[in-house]
Amino acid sequence: MIKAINRTRIKDIALRANVSIGTVDRVIHNRGEVSKATRDKILSIIDEMEYQPNLLASTLASKKTFSFALLFPEPISTESYWNKPMVGVRKAFHEIQQYGVNINIHLFKQSDPNTFNTEAQQILESNPDGVVLAPFFSRQSKEFIAELKKRAIPYVFIDSNIKDSDKLSYIGQDSYQSGTLAAKLLDYSIPENAAILVLQFAKEKDNLNHLMQREKGFYEYFNSNSTSGKKKLFTLEIIDPTDLIGQNKITDLLKSNPDIKGIFVTNSQVYYLARLIEENNLSGIRVIGHDLINENINFLKKGIVDFLICQRPEEQGYKAIITLFEHLVLKKEVNNENYTSIDIITKENLDYYK
Amino acid sequence: MIKAINRTRIKDIALRANVSIGTVDRVIHNRGEVSKATRDKILSIIDEMEYQPNLLASTLASKKTFSFALLFPEPISTESYWNKPMVGVRKAFHEIQQYGVNINIHLFKQSDPNTFNTEAQQILESNPDGVVLAPFFSRQSKEFIAELKKRAIPYVFIDSNIKDSDKLSYIGQDSYQSGTLAAKLLDYSIPENAAILVLQFAKEKDNLNHLMQREKGFYEYFNSNSTSGKKKLFTLEIIDPTDLIGQNKITDLLKSNPDIKGIFVTNSQVYYLARLIEENNLSGIRVIGHDLINENINFLKKGIVDFLICQRPEEQGYKAIITLFEHLVLKKEVNNENYTSIDIITKENLDYYK
Repeated sequence: MIKAINRTRIKDIALRANVSIGTVDRVIHNRGEVSKATRDKILSIIDEMEYQPNLLASTLASKKTFSFALLFPEPISTESYWNKPMVGVRKAFHEIQQYGVNINIHLFKQSDPNTFNTEAQQILESNPDGVVLAPFFSRQSKEFIAELKKRAIPYVFIDSNIKDSDKLSYIGQDSYQSGTLAAKLLDYSIPENAAILVLQFAKEKDNLNHLMQREKGFYEYFNSNSTSGKKKLFTLEIIDPTDLIGQNKITDLLKSNPDIKGIFVTNSQVYYLARLIEENNLSGIRVIGHDLINENINFLKKGIVDFLICQRPEEQGYKAIITLFEHLVLKKEVNNENYTSIDIITKENLDYYK
Repeated sequence: MIKAINRTRIKDIALRANVSIGTVDRVIHNRGEVSKATRDKILSIIDEMEYQPNLLASTLASKKTFSFALLFPEPISTESYWNKPMVGVRKAFHEIQQYGVNINIHLFKQSDPNTFNTEAQQILESNPDGVVLAPFFSRQSKEFIAELKKRAIPYVFIDSNIKDSDKLSYIGQDSYQSGTLAAKLLDYSIPENAAILVLQFAKEKDNLNHLMQREKGFYEYFNSNSTSGKKKLFTLEIIDPTDLIGQNKITDLLKSNPDIKGIFVTNSQVYYLARLIEENNLSGIRVIGHDLINENINFLKKGIVDFLICQRPEEQGYKAIITLFEHLVLKKEVNNENYTSIDIITKENLDYYK
């Protein structure tokens, strides 16, 4: 059985529609007069024959340039999480640069909401055509987007979402759902009557939207699964994982509660916990955390971290830029919510994850 | 902190290298005389400034057309696995069609190695520039590629690999490794002393390379993990999952062995097992299988199948075509092995998987 795929040319469409090449061209470029019936017929043939017009040529005719502003957390180190969305941003830029798009990147400190405000202010002063932001701090983000709305500047969220905020689009994980996935994996991995610890490394948890959602999804899984209901869950909040007092609090808790057989760390800082487990020779605890950063990979390989839930940060960066581009430059409809996949990484599939 | 990304133009490279635009152009298009030192300098600047040349323009100058032949299993139904690589093939075709590439698709029956031979013969008669094939049947595939080799026609494998075969490239999963991943997930999901059944739905298992590899990886995980070694494993081969005798064999085995708490089905036909579990009201068995086809998705949602290991079939189809294209048309170096990711899908992350 043979099927051939050949390139569709304007000529083929004209032949099929029984019109001139010029008429097809007018429909494709949306100019000149064509009757609705002919237009609809041609569009349906274009669709059917999977013809792909050359968008660049028509857009290049206009000389307008577009300025995008980015507001992201500053990566803590060269290996840390927030370098990754930037890889996707650069990739997107290379694809669209010929359309006259410039991108300005603003970074704030994850430990300091004030730096978020300063950078947000600079963005407003530069009067960009569109903004991509990680609404890391809930309160400060809401102030910023109120101002963007007032000025009719479209904004795309990355990494975490603020519902009912008139955003152009959200690109990222469904944090609640990733919490339920983490819950299932731990539920399956530990004995029936064991206890589970949810560990939040955060200064101001209530201002950190996605951590709240993950925890909520995690608890909800156990509340709604009767067969898993025997497991005891509790949450511990540690402000600073590098601080010795917090570390001692964790190890004391684990040593005095040997029925804790599973730990869920709600962010990428799971390696701090893994280090404590290794140093104290604690065994028989299944650990799940977030994000494929080098520190976490090491503990995944050693078998101290069992699962990492990942969220395709490169893709998030890429899609955020492309979405803004499609809206502003190509004037296309874009999706208001664009959830990236919730990936499960173990020692076994790590080397094949891209 | 602000960093700007701006488009790199040939002019910028010329300025930085302190040469004329014409010299940069000669290096980019690899024509005319440029000294090695100047050439190296320009190439390193191109690399550093992340300049992306417009390949199409230079390739369009040549008028040669290329003919690719595909040899894939015929999809059993409109929803079945082998429709998926074709989606990727079409996507790749749309990207490269303007370079004068034609693709001819040959389909063989998964139940009949003779149809593989017939289609392979037709491909040889058409004398294509390159071939993408799923080496589904080991013996027949080896005969075919021996002939391709003789005629110096490059071939790319998709879905399963034949090692040491002078292939241009393999695009697909590491089947052995996906077996170890399935093993880990089942190991974590069932009690310490439970038994595990490996179920092979296959007529001629020995002629089906990837199923053998998956089973091998699965057993190897338990052999090499001392803490998991208490679990008893055994394999059952069922020639035809639609046959009542085979089905009764499975249900009898499960009913008489209540210590079987986990089942691994080595291919996408896990839904046949799930149906038996449902019909016979068997509970407390964790099930893992392969591939995100509709029948499997239903049982994943119902909680009868716990995990599906997936292998990005669309991406495999896409990459196979692009690899052949890069080798034949763009004359680029291509990777000899291109492993796709080994994805874990559960009820919880299903809706976000792409």
